Amino acid sequence: MGIIVQKFGGSSVANAERVMNVAKRIVETYKQGHSVVVVVSAQGDTTDDLIEKAREINPKGSKREMDMLLSSGEQISVALLAMAIQSLGFNAVSLTGWQAGFTTNSNYGIAKIHTIHNERVKKEIDSKNIVIIAGFQGINRYDDITTLGRGGSDTSAVAIAASLGADLCEIYTDVDGVYTADPRLVPHAHKLDDISYDEMLELASLGANVLHNRSVEMAKKYGVNLVVRSSLNNNEGTVVKEVEKVEKLDVRGVARDNDVARIALVNVKDEPGVAFKIFSMLAKNNVNVDIILQSIGRQGKKDISFTVNEDNLDIAIELLEQHKDVIGFEEIKATNEVSKISIVGAGMVNNPGVAAKMFEALYDANINIHMISTSEIKVSVLVNQKNADKAVQAVHDKFHLV
Amino acid sequence: MGIIVQKFGGSSVANAERVMNVAKRIVETYKQGHSVVVVVSAQGDTTDDLIEKAREINPKGSKREMDMLLSSGEQISVALLAMAIQSLGFNAVSLTGWQAGFTTNSNYGIAKIHTIHNERVKKEIDSKNIVIIAGFQGINRYDDITTLGRGGSDTSAVAIAASLGADLCEIYTDVDGVYTADPRLVPHAHKLDDISYDEMLELASLGANVLHNRSVEMAKKYGVNLVVRSSLNNNEGTVVKEVEKVEKLDVRGVARDNDVARIALVNVKDEPGVAFKIFSMLAKNNVNVDIILQSIGRQGKKDISFTVNEDNLDIAIELLEQHKDVIGFEEIKATNEVSKISIVGAGMVNNPGVAAKMFEALYDANINIHMISTSEIKVSVLVNQKNADKAVQAVHDKFHLV
Repeated sequence: MGIIVQKFGGSSVANAERVMNVAKRIVETYKQGHSVVVVVSAQGDTTDDLIEKAREINPKGSKREMDMLLSSGEQISVALLAMAIQSLGFNAVSLTGWQAGFTTNSNYGIAKIHTIHNERVKKEIDSKNIVIIAGFQGINRYDDITTLGRGGSDTSAVAIAASLGADLCEIYTDVDGVYTADPRLVPHAHKLDDISYDEMLELASLGANVLHNRSVEMAKKYGVNLVVRSSLNNNEGTVVKEVEKVEKLDVRGVARDNDVARIALVNVKDEPGVAFKIFSMLAKNNVNVDIILQSIGRQGKKDISFTVNEDNLDIAIELLEQHKDVIGFEEIKATNEVSKISIVGAGMVNNPGVAAKMFEALYDANINIHMISTSEIKVSVLVNQKNADKAVQAVHDKFHLV
Repeated sequence: MGIIVQKFGGSSVANAERVMNVAKRIVETYKQGHSVVVVVSAQGDTTDDLIEKAREINPKGSKREMDMLLSSGEQISVALLAMAIQSLGFNAVSLTGWQAGFTTNSNYGIAKIHTIHNERVKKEIDSKNIVIIAGFQGINRYDDITTLGRGGSDTSAVAIAASLGADLCEIYTDVDGVYTADPRLVPHAHKLDDISYDEMLELASLGANVLHNRSVEMAKKYGVNLVVRSSLNNNEGTVVKEVEKVEKLDVRGVARDNDVARIALVNVKDEPGVAFKIFSMLAKNNVNVDIILQSIGRQGKKDISFTVNEDNLDIAIELLEQHKDVIGFEEIKATNEVSKISIVGAGMVNNPGVAAKMFEALYDANINIHMISTSEIKVSVLVNQKNADKAVQAVHDKFHLV
């Protein structure tokens, strides 16, 4: 008898039939006596279609106008879902981001949620309405519409769950939960019953595509009970929660991220402050850098390589070229034909042999490693994209994740 | 160097090319030194497509949700138009109805504008931005999105023009202006240079399809200078303004309205209050009634016929059936195979021969008249729809409107 937040992605509401299925699932939860708050993304390809419309007219329109345009997508899906619930004989009310009280900063396209003024949502809950909220969007202090970027609807769902003190936040997706590896790559991969926020965070940011890392960060920060489950069946799903430290070797899963690109700056001057100049400049322009590798300087020169999201490759190169004189390098080499393969597990920090075991698996599979990055709970390597699937399988089997 | 409001309909922004053409026209006006505020409808068939999406899911979804859904259409078109203007090197900012300060009552689907809080629009004008406003929409006192119904964008344009004290409100359409008759029906019809608010009001409400009557009423009330002109060329258009009373016979135009239906209640009890019961009940349910005809009572019974908009035919019949016992009639006869033909002109009131001349024209063309309605500046007749076009031509020629 508490508040349950349910989030449905774009493919779950892609057409009339799926919208009706989602409506039925929501009504089932409501009939159990819970207050239900739903967060929905835009239908299927709507966002892509809108981006294409904009591109035809002006590939460089302002980000403010782009957010105005894209936010219409969720406005359509929330209204349709509310009508679907009404057709089942239940009361539903749809709310845009601003109506639901989502305020954000002004970073159009990648805005961060600032506060949720949840009075309206609470009022609708009190009126026994099922509340359908447009994910991915909010307004800034100027009353302009903003969008939250990739995975924004997950973040919207966790944020409203935190704001309302919801008992549960269910993220519905097209898989049963979090797996030890992508089941399309590793057929004998199996579903995890639970996973810690930190492990999920690494998996999320490493291309597991189940939950966006921003939403997991927020869930961890506010202690939101998350469940990842399928919108296609009634299986249990994977619970994401705070867990006690584990000491034993515990590799939980293998992830693959193909949306990664590598940039190498050749013959950079070997002097203090160069790395600072490069990475502060990129950060200022919202280009996130992941793995960084720096060669040992020879004859006053060194090479600096790093990875960025594939989407940021062009802008990163443009920025670097603009600042070529300040940074002082000879040449840029770049490729997006690479993939990042990662193993994740909270027990890893105490087991130095884990990384070596991963490298051994890749060596046995004759796969060359370009870059390596480690943290307390993960080891990531960069390999050629053509070897990515084979690498996932080899690593998965090596750790007996079956 | 004043403020000019320009309104563009859905067909004017139906695709990328047309959006660019509209953008160029707006920029031309802006370059002349004017402040430009633009009101836009949803692109082409967007609204119809959204209605179809809703119908698939729930043909009887709440009107609130329908407005939430439909208002996304203009949100798309304003963003695209702003981007188009940006691509020409000028600053533009798009605003939804609520961002532009349009507050309305809560009659979802047919809301009336209450107040415009125009501070944001003024601020954008002061910042030298071209302001692009979503027509057809606003918000009510609960912060819920409303739509204004048919011709709503015309009304939005005139309302913001009145609110800002704009020097001119240009309504762009796909014809050159207001004609003496529909040029597709009467090839030798010609364009009027100017027309009074009252005459336009009759023409608008009589199916001339150029301007919606609500917008003309508002323009008259606030003295907004209106111009109806083509978005496809630079012709002068028709000025709609207050004109001094004219004494001479002056039939300005002939209009045809096919979207009309006739309902006849057969053998109604001939007693006081019957008409009141019928028409107050219909009015309460937002069914507008136009021409009313009542037969002389015989043997305690009479017939009452009236016309409604075709869209309201089903609901009107349903309402009448529900109240059959209270009203006391024997049978309902209804048809939408009728058209209303009207002549309009401010001088008509002083010329009793005008109506007779119109009837003569129809008699000569062998067209039967079902109902007649007259006002100070118009005469309307109901004829079979199959005779409508012939009727317009006959009447047009009779009054030498060539």
